[in-house]
Amino acid sequence: MKTYRRELWFEVPTRRGFVNITPQVEACLAASGIREGLCLVNAMHITASVFINDNEPGLHGDFERWLENLAPFDPEGYQHHRTGEDNGDAHLKRTIMGREVVVAVTGGKLDFGPWEQIFYGEFDGRRRKRSLVKIIGE
Amino acid sequence: MKTYRRELWFEVPTRRGFVNITPQVEACLAASGIREGLCLVNAMHITASVFINDNEPGLHGDFERWLENLAPFDPEGYQHHRTGEDNGDAHLKRTIMGREVVVAVTGGKLDFGPWEQIFYGEFDGRRRKRSLVKIIGE
Amino acid sequence: MKTYRRELWFEVPTRRGFVNITPQVEACLAASGIREGLCLVNAMHITASVFINDNEPGLHGDFERWLENLAPFDPEGYQHHRTGEDNGDAHLKRTIMGREVVVAVTGGKLDFGPWEQIFYGEFDGRRRKRSLVKIIGE
Repeated sequence: MKTYRRELWFEVPTRRGFVNITPQVEACLAASGIREGLCLVNAMHITASVFINDNEPGLHGDFERWLENLAPFDPEGYQHHRTGEDNGDAHLKRTIMGREVVVAVTGGKLDFGPWEQIFYGEFDGRRRKRSLVKIIGE
Repeated sequence: MKTYRRELWFEVPTRRGFVNITPQVEACLAASGIREGLCLVNAMHITASVFINDNEPGLHGDFERWLENLAPFDPEGYQHHRTGEDNGDAHLKRTIMGREVVVAVTGGKLDFGPWEQIFYGEFDGRRRKRSLVKIIGE
Repeated sequence: MKTYRRELWFEVPTRRGFVNITPQVEACLAASGIREGLCLVNAMHITASVFINDNEPGLHGDFERWLENLAPFDPEGYQHHRTGEDNGDAHLKRTIMGREVVVAVTGGKLDFGPWEQIFYGEFDGRRRKRSLVKIIGE
């Protein structure tokens, strides 16, 4: 069995944003030499997500507006802010969008349907944060 | 290490529906000959889900009503529709329900609790779509 | 390839609660002898979750209040209750929080960011229930 590990670093200049990381994950897979297995990609921070959806800016605007409605930014509104934080909403938004994806690796490629792309979802940005790529297989 | 891959195809005749795919995943596992490992099942489309819950029609009705409330079908209401699509709600519903499940394989069986069943969740049906089963182990 | 399996049992004395299970999962990993691979932790019940977030009581209060708003406890309000159950809300809450996490194993450790901790999320407690830890690798 082979394994491969790499961290991907980000510094999103705004509080919230989506970054298409599919090319970086594909580069990891090529570097791993793994042809058959599973590829885990997860946010290493609890106010960020890794998720799979469409690379379409209108849809990303819909996600932004929808998440703001389900879990609004509110510096006064969360018990978590007693610790001095102001990012309670980011923990909830990341919960909706998910921490991780697991992608099949087949014939040395990410085994994707026609529109699947991997995104890093930032909900408390303006600082350096990271995701983990771990691939196992042979 | 052994690996196994198969696509499961669906054509749900309505816009939305849930299909119990547990027997098909069990058949994949039997065909794989894998006794110990992990089984990934994921939607290959970004307007569909694979999730684990109860095989109870009343609960499925509750999911339907709840998702419609959290992410309503609305041909006018999403920025995504500027592309000509009308399925913005389906991308959001799938996000709530999840893209994938990872199931332990133990002794040649899906290692499930008493009520766990795997469902394909369709949110933009009336056309042929598919899920992926990838199993690794030995 | 090595594999390891263990069930973790809980009896949360209230209907809802969060239990930090990181030390138990770390003990499983140590017992497995696996240094590189993947660790799956999933609820075996469909009214409970396993998720990763911050070990901060204020945030847990925020999760509780937020979930109650998105999927309220309501003995009269769910079709699922025609079966005699009163836990329809618990199925929906678990869907938001997720069934499972997959964690990378690197150098014999759970490969975590600075604040990641694993929680069992109970939404229909006051009885014995369990989660599954399955680790594969070498």
